[in-house]
Amino acid sequence: MYPLLDKINSPADLKLLNTEELAALAAEIRGFLLQTVSCTGGHIASNFGCVELTLALHYCFESPQDKIIWDVGHQAYTHKILTGRRDVFHTQRQYKGISGFPKRSESPHDAFGAGHSSTSISAGLGMATANSLLARKSKVISVIGDGSLTGGLAFEGLNQAGHLGKNLIVILNDNDMSISKNVGAFASFVSRKLTGKYFRDLKKEMQSLLKSIPAIGSNILHFAKKAENSLKGFLTPGTLFEALGFDYVGPINGHDLPQLIDVLRNCQNVEGPILIHVMTKKGNGYLPAEKDPDIFHGIGPFNIETGTLKAKPGGAKSYTAVFGQTMVRLAEEDEKIVAITAAMPDGTGLSSFAHTFPERFFDVGIAEQHALTFAAGLAADGFRPVAAIYSTFAQRAYDQVFHDICLQKLPVTLALDRGGLVGDDGPTHHGVFDISFLRHFPEMTVMAPKDENELQHMLKTAVYSNRPISLRYPRGAGYGVTMDLSPVALEIGKGEILAEGDDLAIIAIGSTVYPALDAAKLLTERGIKATVVNARFVKPLDQDLILKVARRTGVLVTVEENALAGGFGGAILELLESEGITGIKVKRIGIPDYFIEQGSQSQLRKDLSLDAHGIAATAGSLLSGKERPAHPFVRVK
Amino acid sequence: MYPLLDKINSPADLKLLNTEELAALAAEIRGFLLQTVSCTGGHIASNFGCVELTLALHYCFESPQDKIIWDVGHQAYTHKILTGRRDVFHTQRQYKGISGFPKRSESPHDAFGAGHSSTSISAGLGMATANSLLARKSKVISVIGDGSLTGGLAFEGLNQAGHLGKNLIVILNDNDMSISKNVGAFASFVSRKLTGKYFRDLKKEMQSLLKSIPAIGSNILHFAKKAENSLKGFLTPGTLFEALGFDYVGPINGHDLPQLIDVLRNCQNVEGPILIHVMTKKGNGYLPAEKDPDIFHGIGPFNIETGTLKAKPGGAKSYTAVFGQTMVRLAEEDEKIVAITAAMPDGTGLSSFAHTFPERFFDVGIAEQHALTFAAGLAADGFRPVAAIYSTFAQRAYDQVFHDICLQKLPVTLALDRGGLVGDDGPTHHGVFDISFLRHFPEMTVMAPKDENELQHMLKTAVYSNRPISLRYPRGAGYGVTMDLSPVALEIGKGEILAEGDDLAIIAIGSTVYPALDAAKLLTERGIKATVVNARFVKPLDQDLILKVARRTGVLVTVEENALAGGFGGAILELLESEGITGIKVKRIGIPDYFIEQGSQSQLRKDLSLDAHGIAATAGSLLSGKERPAHPFVRVK
Repeated sequence: MYPLLDKINSPADLKLLNTEELAALAAEIRGFLLQTVSCTGGHIASNFGCVELTLALHYCFESPQDKIIWDVGHQAYTHKILTGRRDVFHTQRQYKGISGFPKRSESPHDAFGAGHSSTSISAGLGMATANSLLARKSKVISVIGDGSLTGGLAFEGLNQAGHLGKNLIVILNDNDMSISKNVGAFASFVSRKLTGKYFRDLKKEMQSLLKSIPAIGSNILHFAKKAENSLKGFLTPGTLFEALGFDYVGPINGHDLPQLIDVLRNCQNVEGPILIHVMTKKGNGYLPAEKDPDIFHGIGPFNIETGTLKAKPGGAKSYTAVFGQTMVRLAEEDEKIVAITAAMPDGTGLSSFAHTFPERFFDVGIAEQHALTFAAGLAADGFRPVAAIYSTFAQRAYDQVFHDICLQKLPVTLALDRGGLVGDDGPTHHGVFDISFLRHFPEMTVMAPKDENELQHMLKTAVYSNRPISLRYPRGAGYGVTMDLSPVALEIGKGEILAEGDDLAIIAIGSTVYPALDAAKLLTERGIKATVVNARFVKPLDQDLILKVARRTGVLVTVEENALAGGFGGAILELLESEGITGIKVKRIGIPDYFIEQGSQSQLRKDLSLDAHGIAATAGSLLSGKERPAHPFVRVK
Repeated sequence: MYPLLDKINSPADLKLLNTEELAALAAEIRGFLLQTVSCTGGHIASNFGCVELTLALHYCFESPQDKIIWDVGHQAYTHKILTGRRDVFHTQRQYKGISGFPKRSESPHDAFGAGHSSTSISAGLGMATANSLLARKSKVISVIGDGSLTGGLAFEGLNQAGHLGKNLIVILNDNDMSISKNVGAFASFVSRKLTGKYFRDLKKEMQSLLKSIPAIGSNILHFAKKAENSLKGFLTPGTLFEALGFDYVGPINGHDLPQLIDVLRNCQNVEGPILIHVMTKKGNGYLPAEKDPDIFHGIGPFNIETGTLKAKPGGAKSYTAVFGQTMVRLAEEDEKIVAITAAMPDGTGLSSFAHTFPERFFDVGIAEQHALTFAAGLAADGFRPVAAIYSTFAQRAYDQVFHDICLQKLPVTLALDRGGLVGDDGPTHHGVFDISFLRHFPEMTVMAPKDENELQHMLKTAVYSNRPISLRYPRGAGYGVTMDLSPVALEIGKGEILAEGDDLAIIAIGSTVYPALDAAKLLTERGIKATVVNARFVKPLDQDLILKVARRTGVLVTVEENALAGGFGGAILELLESEGITGIKVKRIGIPDYFIEQGSQSQLRKDLSLDAHGIAATAGSLLSGKERPAHPFVRVK
């Protein structure tokens, strides 16, 4: 079925092919990718866009001696298939399968792991510097998309790379689009392409300018301004990158294998940093993905023929959708509400807001740091900004939460989507630290809703709290609960008791509240009567409520989809300590001190005793004095 | 003594002066600054560099309706003096005095607080967007140094500002130097200045180029390359910023008041983003600071005549110095050791390393994110990178610690200087979160030495641990303890008992170990016998040791110069919980849940019960069953 691909077990096999065969192989790879990813789900658009580029890279360079670094990492499927992982590729993003991202522990060909954006130039520069210190001849190639270049880290890397002058090849994989339509002045600048007309116009303009200045002397600044204005239109990405110390080659057609190979070979022995500007088309070769690259960025299992999802979305609304709808609803009544996303208008559910209130919607690109400082500026001027960011990506803006928001007590709302275990994307994407990293900042309020109805109330609570505040909610569908007609602000720092019992209390937060309730039912069958608390607030904790149930039962189980270290359960231990209360039996359930691999959310929750059975078992063994069993889950390799 | 300055109580008073009087006022301000800062210490070089710029800004704009945002904030002294804080300026950086940085709670003229770098463009863009949404005519001016532009956040801000096209004035305060000599391709690019010769050369070159191309047609790319090469030298900061969507004006002389005023007035009504490039000289007007701007960046009290420090450094070596010396020593024996700083070669003690091993020393500029991902790249290739960063600035690289270092188990050493309370710089600079934010990442090891001798051992421990690892040490002098002849690696996860006693155990980490020992002596006088533990490791904790003393005494006091939330004491509570141990009385001493203002380290430690008396009092009251008194310290306003 894949006569050429079947013979490729390592990049060495690739080098035996001629360019016609390579082109045929590219077609086979697209077929193979479609066949596999339509079953497993995954990233289609970006991977279809860089089949030829990946082939050319492995054809021209000697991985793993030469190091190929994939920025963000979701475009490395062809790379994985070519480097010995063809036969396990169907396990990608599956429980105990291979990762959907490059991973150093998975293959020596994965020079640097990634799942977050904009790291490849910095990491590549580190390796290029290592080469230089060791007087090694091997190459380092960082492949970065135009969207990832928006991230400040990429600029920091470019800036030092141009300065150090090490041998680093940066491939700008330019598809005019990162995850959504690209934004930012830089993106529109990079997209300026060279044309013949361009140069004819330039020549004409320059000639007339040079003629118009009879003598250079006192009038330098005037001439400078005129000359600059003439030249402004001439600036290309080349001049910009060259200004930063890079040699520039391009733009070249990223689907033209012979040209790619030609250029890469020519550039192999260039000294110093070089940037090769490659134009690719997202989804290239699969029409549904070409037409709708946003949908095919990351997608579930789909029908190859129609390009439609196999599992029709249905049933309960996602948290993301409820967030987006509530944003529109709140903003209809309050002009001060503005929304900010970092290149995720669809992913965060803000597309409808963007459409309804284009003036109050801001997509800052992949730039989480800026997103929050920009939000702080708006808040300082009386607005009510809501920044919707995936929990794991909000880590990029940790210092901005501290320095620009909390320290100045500015009323910015952090809407952290994908809080907790995200499933198939694995450890780079699990959002399991936000409770820990937000609650240690003074002035911060930290919430998590038990279901999608509480989400709408918490969003209203946040927006009108007039303080730094966060709410985190999980990836995926809610419970299909009845939605109250209107969002109503909750009292800050108040939890609720959902079930009463004297034997022990389960104190849960966010996504763990319903499993805790179910656990209580299971415990009832064993004759154990549990109180169940929906804490709602990690900070401020509902001290009265928690101390009351602690005193009533003497036994607490805390449950959170967050790191145990410094998390919600830790906050409760700290509360007991600061109140001078000893003798309470406490057991915390949460994310242990190792990185959690990919797998379905339900599987991972089961592994970590975060489901009803796990919670019940832990609670039960606590009462019977037995320790809960060690986690059966395999540690990150 | 200051006839003009004495009459300036607000920017309105400034507007009554003519330009001659303004120049005279500038001289008075320099005298006033010298007189004050020579007594209090503070930032001299940057403030002397922008006296005229500040005067011109307040002369031309209407603060606080117009918003002036000072990046990093350490250059806002003249701004403070002009905006009603002249008479309290002698209290700057003093306990309960005014801050050395802009602070929203201190004055309506402080539009946005700062102490960390590169935030002003993003915050300013937020305010400019607010103006636009409210159809307000007021202006926003972000003043940013060339050093701060190296930070990725500044680029993210520029990028969106150019895209949105709001009315934002960015003043590039260019002194070819941030805190130390500037680095990076961008910096050397920005420093290209316009000269007459430049343009004559350009004209000549362009003419010959245009002549040399007889006809435009098939040869477009060849022409493009030649034209680009010709023009490359012509590129100025103007073309670069214009490429990013800004209008560009400059460079102009930042000490020429009439020109500054002229330009600022002309730019007031420009629509869209504009960048004004102002050339200033650090320390301008005070010869010792002009000569040695590094020394006068931040300085203690000094003699005005000689420019020398009043308090001669002497006595015990600083932790910073011991770190720097140990780095040189270790690197002499191991070529794989490399050192990285983010624009702080002097502040982190790495100057000597830089001089001894220039090839292995990397100053990446104000770019903490890149510093750590670059380090990860080096570590992935077999090097032993040590990144020395102030604790508070390391917050910028939180996600890089997670994504690039811990997730990949890469052996990067984080040497966190200024861990704990830093004193006069106040809340933006206290490094009181690192224990909390580092310990919740899997694979991370977290240490803190009790004194400068242990620092050398911990640095060796870290470098040869082959894992992600951090050590944090305080600002200032060590204890003058005898230094062991050679650094020796410690056993990871092992603490030590420094005093024995059955009544209670004080478990201390880092800077709190000696105060804990002194507290034990004070307790002895009251008949209380305390065990004192130097924990050494926050992660992994020395479980055996801690559980042993917990069982022996039943009463634990934990002491740390870090946030109580999720910190070292929290880790010990979590340990007791995970071991199922109840009934131990624990009291944690550390940084409470509010931002700590400025003041001497000893004063702040006293206020927070982190000194010997405070620890002894807390321990004593714990035994007698009395609660420790509420913190007497005033909360942040």
